[in-house]
Amino acid sequence: MLLENCHLFSGLSSSRLDRIRALAEEKSVTKGELLYREEATAGSIFLLKKGAVELWSQMDERIELPVTIVREGGRCFGTAALVAPYRYTLTAKCAEDALLLAIPAEGLFRLMEEDRELGCVVMGNLASHFLSRLKETREELKIHFRTLFRSIQF
Amino acid sequence: MLLENCHLFSGLSSSRLDRIRALAEEKSVTKGELLYREEATAGSIFLLKKGAVELWSQMDERIELPVTIVREGGRCFGTAALVAPYRYTLTAKCAEDALLLAIPAEGLFRLMEEDRELGCVVMGNLASHFLSRLKETREELKIHFRTLFRSIQF
Repeated sequence: MLLENCHLFSGLSSSRLDRIRALAEEKSVTKGELLYREEATAGSIFLLKKGAVELWSQMDERIELPVTIVREGGRCFGTAALVAPYRYTLTAKCAEDALLLAIPAEGLFRLMEEDRELGCVVMGNLASHFLSRLKETREELKIHFRTLFRSIQF
Repeated sequence: MLLENCHLFSGLSSSRLDRIRALAEEKSVTKGELLYREEATAGSIFLLKKGAVELWSQMDERIELPVTIVREGGRCFGTAALVAPYRYTLTAKCAEDALLLAIPAEGLFRLMEEDRELGCVVMGNLASHFLSRLKETREELKIHFRTLFRSIQF
C-alpha cells in the first residue's frame, strides 16, 4: 500500500505500481544514521515506510539547519535523483529508527523510457512536488522578510 | 527559433515544436502593464521574445519585492499554469515594452495527452525548472540566515 500513498506515483494503475515496486529495495536505518549528504551524487529516491527521517540544509561551513521531518508513510525524499545534475539538494539523517524503500533512479528512468505514459505521470507529479517545495520556501523567505522589516521599524 | 531556446521544450523534435508553435499567440505588452497577479488563475505560460518582464512576490499586504527579471529570448514564466492548482505563484509586470508568446495550458495539456512522449519530455523539463527555482530560493534563505547570524554575533 506504500506506493499508492506516494504523491510521486499518484494516478498510476496498479500494474504500473507493481513494475515500480519490483525495483524497490527495503532498507533499515538506525537513529542518527546519515542517509546522504547535500550535493552528493543522487542514485535513489526514498519512500518512508515507518520511523522518521530529518532533512537538513547546510547554511555555511559550520551550521546545518533542519528543513523538515518526514514521518508520514509513503512520503518521498531524495527526489533530486530524478533531475539533472542528479545531486541531493539536502542532507538526510535518520531521526528515529526507520524502514525505507529505496528506488534506484536508473531503474525508474528505464521504466519511464519504455512506458511514456508512466513517465509522463511521474514527471508531472515530480514537477508538482518541486513547485510545492518552492512555494513553502518562498513562504519562509516572506516570514524572514517580515521579521526583519518589523525589527527595522521598531 | 524561440521555442528551441526554451528550456521547457528542450529535447523535442522539430515536428513536435511545430505542434506547440501552432498553439502560441503573440502578445505585445507595454512598460508598466500587469500581465498577471500572484494567486490568479493561470491559463497560459509565456515565452519572452523581446523586451523585459519582471516577476514580483507579495511580501505582505503593502510590500511587493522583485524576484527576477526575464530578459533572455526564449525564457519562460507563468509555468505554474501547468501544475494543479493552476495559479500563478508570482506577479508579472512588463518592465520594458515586450513581445511575448502566450501558450494556453489547455492546448498544451491536450498535446501532452495525445502524445505521451512529448508530455514526458515537457513534464521532465518542468520538474527541472522548478527544482532550479527551489535551489535559488534556498540559496536566498541561506544569505538571509548568514546576514542575521552575523548581526547577532557582532
